[in-house]
Amino acid sequence: MFVVKVGGSEGIDYDAFINDLSNHKNYVIVHGGSSELNQVSTKLGHPPKFVESVSGYTSRFTDRKTMDIFNMIYAGKMNKMIVEKMQQMNINAIGLSGIDGRLIEGKKKRSLKVIENGKKKILRGDMSGMIEKINHGLLQLLLNNGYIPVITPPAISYEGEAINVDGDRCAGQIAVSLKVDHLIILSNIPGLLKDPSQESTLIKNIKTKDIEYNIKNFAQGRMKKKLLGAQEAINGGVKKVILGDARIQNPISAALEGKGTVIE
Amino acid sequence: MFVVKVGGSEGIDYDAFINDLSNHKNYVIVHGGSSELNQVSTKLGHPPKFVESVSGYTSRFTDRKTMDIFNMIYAGKMNKMIVEKMQQMNINAIGLSGIDGRLIEGKKKRSLKVIENGKKKILRGDMSGMIEKINHGLLQLLLNNGYIPVITPPAISYEGEAINVDGDRCAGQIAVSLKVDHLIILSNIPGLLKDPSQESTLIKNIKTKDIEYNIKNFAQGRMKKKLLGAQEAINGGVKKVILGDARIQNPISAALEGKGTVIE
Repeated sequence: MFVVKVGGSEGIDYDAFINDLSNHKNYVIVHGGSSELNQVSTKLGHPPKFVESVSGYTSRFTDRKTMDIFNMIYAGKMNKMIVEKMQQMNINAIGLSGIDGRLIEGKKKRSLKVIENGKKKILRGDMSGMIEKINHGLLQLLLNNGYIPVITPPAISYEGEAINVDGDRCAGQIAVSLKVDHLIILSNIPGLLKDPSQESTLIKNIKTKDIEYNIKNFAQGRMKKKLLGAQEAINGGVKKVILGDARIQNPISAALEGKGTVIE
Repeated sequence: MFVVKVGGSEGIDYDAFINDLSNHKNYVIVHGGSSELNQVSTKLGHPPKFVESVSGYTSRFTDRKTMDIFNMIYAGKMNKMIVEKMQQMNINAIGLSGIDGRLIEGKKKRSLKVIENGKKKILRGDMSGMIEKINHGLLQLLLNNGYIPVITPPAISYEGEAINVDGDRCAGQIAVSLKVDHLIILSNIPGLLKDPSQESTLIKNIKTKDIEYNIKNFAQGRMKKKLLGAQEAINGGVKKVILGDARIQNPISAALEGKGTVIE
């Protein structure tokens, strides 16, 4: 059994991804939708706002209106698009957000400490949080009855509020909860690059103890969170995390064969 | 146990609806989202198109682009809004569309026979269909494990395509599948009115054999499908269908006490 995360940047070939699923059994899917969310929220007159945390991570500022559009894109359009395509291939997919049955639970952040124009600032009204619990029983119930879970953020706070959590870290926590050996994180690049402008600078292997070093020295933007998700997964008992390319044919098989950045 | 359908016209008080849920146990929710869909699809530059069938029913022309926005609103925004509010009240809701786990299966219509400007016309490219099967096993699995299903169209065709199906008739078929005694259909009017402009003309009771007569003589617009859903439910073994008002406090309790149009 493995967990695979796909999307949500531009350029992902969802058809290739879903076609490749028929070559595999026993998996759980986690997906994103950020690129689509940026487009639609802009069209709806509520363009995305990104903030940089004091620790150097970029994240989406998620006010209530953004959360509603977030649900539209992630739990609505993207989730049902993937489930529909899987059903067309006779894979009995079932789509869930982290809110449903409290599948992904966590703590809502009270405030965001960000850097704006070089100055530290406290932002309020942000609906984001940190994952702390996976409803393992619900996942197992569905898997035992022949359903393939297709999972998307948001998660839910202990008070029952939707919270924006990172999809890669979701995938990591789900992989830990299911005690799988492999976590695959597919995006629109071949893996971690030493120089983001040169795909030939792919880092093929990272040892667990070197993750921190690679986050500091090579990871940029969203890649930082992918490495963080990988680190959390490995600390939780996952044996191997592969950062693979979702723009190619058979992206899952390729990743399982070691194409991409293999972290172990 | 009962099935309750709520929305998706304008003026529905979802907070009152969800607050009233804590007064009840053992139920399944089906919801709509048409008013919200009309607004958002217009904002996204793809305004709704309604057609009138040769048999006199009005329905939404659902091309692929409309279906994507349909999923955004029904399975994304509305479904997760209801699930989130229920979770805040410690009700362990789980939201599903008819696509998920093939919960609601049916036949896709090959073409639509419509009346346009008084003339008969065949329309193609419409993704709508007729419900034929409910995945009773999935509903029972969730209920037996303490989850409350919150269900939304679309359904899925045998070929695995999303199909737009009427929410009231979904609720009717789910009520039949679960062999419940009561089906409650809540909308933004007090029930079936003899004169739609006068709420005082509420028809308080309809005998099963008179449903057809009432569809022909009093029901207009979406109310026709509510009566059709009621008829299908009663033909399938449901004892009582109540068309109730979703704009009031405790709308479910009121309907169960007989407020609205009671069909039996």
